[in-house]
Amino acid sequence: MVREVPGGGTGRPGTEGVEMVEDTAEQAGPGAGMATDIAEQAAGYERLLAEGLDPIAAVARRVAALSPRFVLFTARGTSDHAALFAAYLTEIRLGIPVGLASPSSITVYGARPELRDALVVGVSQSGGSPDLTEVVRVAREQGAHTLAVTNNGSSPLADVAELHIDVRAGKERAVAATKTYTAELLALLLLIEGVRTGTGAIDPADRAELDRLPELARGLLEDPTPGQVAARYRFADRLVTTGRGYAYPTARETALKLMETSYLSALAFSGADLLHGPLAMTDPDVPVLAMVGDGPGGTAMAEVLGRLAERRADVLAVGSADAARLPAHAVRIGTPRVDERFSPLLDILPMQRLALALALARGEDPDAPRGLKKVTETL
Amino acid sequence: MVREVPGGGTGRPGTEGVEMVEDTAEQAGPGAGMATDIAEQAAGYERLLAEGLDPIAAVARRVAALSPRFVLFTARGTSDHAALFAAYLTEIRLGIPVGLASPSSITVYGARPELRDALVVGVSQSGGSPDLTEVVRVAREQGAHTLAVTNNGSSPLADVAELHIDVRAGKERAVAATKTYTAELLALLLLIEGVRTGTGAIDPADRAELDRLPELARGLLEDPTPGQVAARYRFADRLVTTGRGYAYPTARETALKLMETSYLSALAFSGADLLHGPLAMTDPDVPVLAMVGDGPGGTAMAEVLGRLAERRADVLAVGSADAARLPAHAVRIGTPRVDERFSPLLDILPMQRLALALALARGEDPDAPRGLKKVTETL
Repeated sequence: MVREVPGGGTGRPGTEGVEMVEDTAEQAGPGAGMATDIAEQAAGYERLLAEGLDPIAAVARRVAALSPRFVLFTARGTSDHAALFAAYLTEIRLGIPVGLASPSSITVYGARPELRDALVVGVSQSGGSPDLTEVVRVAREQGAHTLAVTNNGSSPLADVAELHIDVRAGKERAVAATKTYTAELLALLLLIEGVRTGTGAIDPADRAELDRLPELARGLLEDPTPGQVAARYRFADRLVTTGRGYAYPTARETALKLMETSYLSALAFSGADLLHGPLAMTDPDVPVLAMVGDGPGGTAMAEVLGRLAERRADVLAVGSADAARLPAHAVRIGTPRVDERFSPLLDILPMQRLALALALARGEDPDAPRGLKKVTETL
Repeated sequence: MVREVPGGGTGRPGTEGVEMVEDTAEQAGPGAGMATDIAEQAAGYERLLAEGLDPIAAVARRVAALSPRFVLFTARGTSDHAALFAAYLTEIRLGIPVGLASPSSITVYGARPELRDALVVGVSQSGGSPDLTEVVRVAREQGAHTLAVTNNGSSPLADVAELHIDVRAGKERAVAATKTYTAELLALLLLIEGVRTGTGAIDPADRAELDRLPELARGLLEDPTPGQVAARYRFADRLVTTGRGYAYPTARETALKLMETSYLSALAFSGADLLHGPLAMTDPDVPVLAMVGDGPGGTAMAEVLGRLAERRADVLAVGSADAARLPAHAVRIGTPRVDERFSPLLDILPMQRLALALALARGEDPDAPRGLKKVTETL
């Protein structure tokens, strides 16, 4: 595991508009750890694309050779959102059906599903959750091939699984996970695209676009918009996040980050589910954060945006979609146009920074959230 | 499909403490439709156990003979919570791994997963959602066996699937689903227990307990407690619901019902996930509705309850657990002690009535929620 020097090797965060974030990092005040974690993500992409590519390709070749009939992901919290992203990729890019395994079926009720021909993937930053470790152990006993994706190669989860991917994010300072999340996203993306080619190698066109990621991430990490937008939510005690397809995990992770750091009630819905009952809840008093890119998932948000505009909802649109596609009064945080598969690696960055800025504006310390433990030890 | 006469054949709702609900039903005022739908659930159980048993057993025998390697459920909104319950049962009672298929993978991204040996189950009250119909159509094309569970046997979803189960709930009056939800739960339970025996028949001990359900439901529908408790939340604009295992779908459905009818932000977490970040959000100002029975899932809530007590959270405990197991100041809505597999059929009843009473106390009409359509037509 690579150990980080705070602020080192990542390219300095920008100097315009994000002074608050940068100052706290330098003064080790509230949120300093989270600010540093966030700022390191561009370098994290560089490192994973340099050092991680070969080991991940080796795992991808193994998985391609095993040719699983279905894939079950098991994860909690932030890692569950990375797993959800990987679930979409697995269905869409590999044509393999997926499930998100509920640990309690196995740990609380003693379920012993028949798992020959299955791949069970445990995703966990710490690799230390006893329930995920138990799920992977039982899965192996039940005939599954097993893979652990963690930021800690010497963890119980990594030990118990047949295969392991180290996401190489370095030690995370804040309790709220940021750089380990994006490292999990990229590692899972590299894995699945490597399984798709069968050789572990990434398609050259994808590779070229991925190589631009660190620079695009750096640009977003310097953009002053999230800090400015955070002020709007200073007195909000609830909001809704939404997105479809590849952007849905971003909506979920944004909601969790806001809840962890700023204690507001943030509800995440897929765009389609929002059109069911929960839309009733949205009005000008309940702000909506909508992930709207210009790919298929973003385009499929058109009806949701229309309904939100009808209801005069307060909308912040995040993503690469043209302003013309957004409700007239929407506030916008633009992100670079990339293949929609890659946008979760970028779109979450301003959302993490929004959560940090909002927490600080509220006088909270996002490095030490009340009631939060780094490793969840539910059994 | 059986057509209901309002108020007919269900046993009258009780006369103590629920006058508000009963009055509105008789006057056809706000919430009258939802009150009638709710009150019909005991009769719904009777009917499904009488008329539905044989047709469901026939489907169960077919499924047992097909012996699927994995099962994918696809559903939205309330039906998604019935599917989640069925997913737990499938893993635990049948030892078959499950997934909850995301329609957007297929409808937005054109995924074509390999589905030989899979059973794909679409659950929808109306059977009219184009995206679920498309998922089941594609699944069949991809080699899956397919089953539609609906309250409308002449619906597109029922037409496109190889097998069909009619949940026989009768026409639902309110937009917010109640009696179709519990009918789906019971139909899916009968299906899965029938697959377990292999003959479609239900284990005699289970059957005896199920035969008590209508009476137990009737008792709950007469209990004045939900109406009394609703007053506590008159001015709450957010709350958290939580449960584990079989009770987690109840927590999810309770949250959705409160959002649909009373426009508050209700966040549902599995007990284990709540111990991650979101616990930070709970304090005496954010009420928690905890599903706590005396089975394995309820017992596994002990740590969650302890942490909530430490944080002096405002807790309403719903379920069969002894008061001694609850935080000292918790408010309690007791429900009958039954096998934990059956408790979702009972525990949701007071939660539906709580949602109705709260909506009325707030001057809302839960029969015509703002922004809500009965059939969601996302593509």
